[in-house]
Amino acid sequence: MRSIKYYKKLREKKYILEEGKYIVEGEHLVEEAYKAGVLEEVLCTDENNIYDVPSNILSMQDLKSISLLKSVPDIMGVVRYKDSNNICGKRIVILDNVQDPGNVGTIVRSALAFNVDTVVLSEDSVSLYNDKMIRASEGTIFHMNVVRMNLSEAVKLIQEKGIKVYYADMDGNLILDECDFKEYAIVLGSEGQGISDYVKSVSDDSISIPISSNCESLNVSVTGGIIMYKFR
Amino acid sequence: MRSIKYYKKLREKKYILEEGKYIVEGEHLVEEAYKAGVLEEVLCTDENNIYDVPSNILSMQDLKSISLLKSVPDIMGVVRYKDSNNICGKRIVILDNVQDPGNVGTIVRSALAFNVDTVVLSEDSVSLYNDKMIRASEGTIFHMNVVRMNLSEAVKLIQEKGIKVYYADMDGNLILDECDFKEYAIVLGSEGQGISDYVKSVSDDSISIPISSNCESLNVSVTGGIIMYKFR
Repeated sequence: MRSIKYYKKLREKKYILEEGKYIVEGEHLVEEAYKAGVLEEVLCTDENNIYDVPSNILSMQDLKSISLLKSVPDIMGVVRYKDSNNICGKRIVILDNVQDPGNVGTIVRSALAFNVDTVVLSEDSVSLYNDKMIRASEGTIFHMNVVRMNLSEAVKLIQEKGIKVYYADMDGNLILDECDFKEYAIVLGSEGQGISDYVKSVSDDSISIPISSNCESLNVSVTGGIIMYKFR
Repeated sequence: MRSIKYYKKLREKKYILEEGKYIVEGEHLVEEAYKAGVLEEVLCTDENNIYDVPSNILSMQDLKSISLLKSVPDIMGVVRYKDSNNICGKRIVILDNVQDPGNVGTIVRSALAFNVDTVVLSEDSVSLYNDKMIRASEGTIFHMNVVRMNLSEAVKLIQEKGIKVYYADMDGNLILDECDFKEYAIVLGSEGQGISDYVKSVSDDSISIPISSNCESLNVSVTGGIIMYKFR
């Protein structure tokens, strides 16, 4: 039986990468991790573990010491850290230095909803075990092929597959309403900095969503959601 | 000249409502408040106040004591609390007990972008001076007609104007792709609880966004963004 100390360490980057595991909190995320086949162990307060993985019965006090949340759930899961280096499929979303974990999680959730095959995160984007990102994804992150990769390499690989790479931009060249792509890679940039110059220079074209002149821009997860909906 | 104590009080609900003013932080929000005509006073560290409203020069120490942010900006604004009780226009978004300030702010931002005339918040939704909500709105909240109202009253007023009320629901009756409304009121529910039974019972119809069967639902601000984009 692992010690509480072990689980507490699994909240730190160094140990997560060393052990290849991290902790998720609450029934919904444990359920989604199980369905995706990445749940390794359940931590809970009673014997009612409904998943066929080992369980460790802990007090609420112990769970509280492991939790990052204000409202501590009575179930947590130890999840296998999974990352992929295979950009598969023909519908791809690329996040160029998107730091906000809520936005990244929300984009992954929309990606699963709209049949995106791969989400590529630039190396400076939020990490794959970020707690807020996982919660914002509502556990869809466990089901999505997420690749963390240098974007110059990613764009090259995608274009070699014959898939065009577009970036979303308020001043983009193509109007979304007039586009109807069944195969695409769309780059979404960080809210502060937009798309990096390098990505702009290698992309095939850019796409804009027409908005009212009295509004500067949309939230990046809304931009992504609208484009994925249009091309689903 | 007001005291620091006065500005600190303007971070509390009681004083905000008594004084009819609240504080916003950072250049962008001060700028947007000014453009919307609700900026009353600037708090900053130097004499370079570019707005024609009174300014109060404070030390970073003082600004820090007023700030709710980790990274304290060198400019803040005192903004007039504005609420409306007039549901105007023919494109209306109604938020039914949406509590998450990030989602509410993001929805207001999309509403301004897609020519929505009024956003109605149910009385149990997040407050209009919520700091996180205002930041997520990127200041668009100052430009939007936002009405805080009991939803039974709001739905009645809207239907009396001849505008149909729809609610967004994963199992909704109408498929978004097949709808093309230029006048509408769309109700978005809280992520946990969805739409309240009362609103369902009085709405004219419901709308769903088709998504993959391996995803349960979309984030509410993404749902709202897609619908507003479609009907803009």
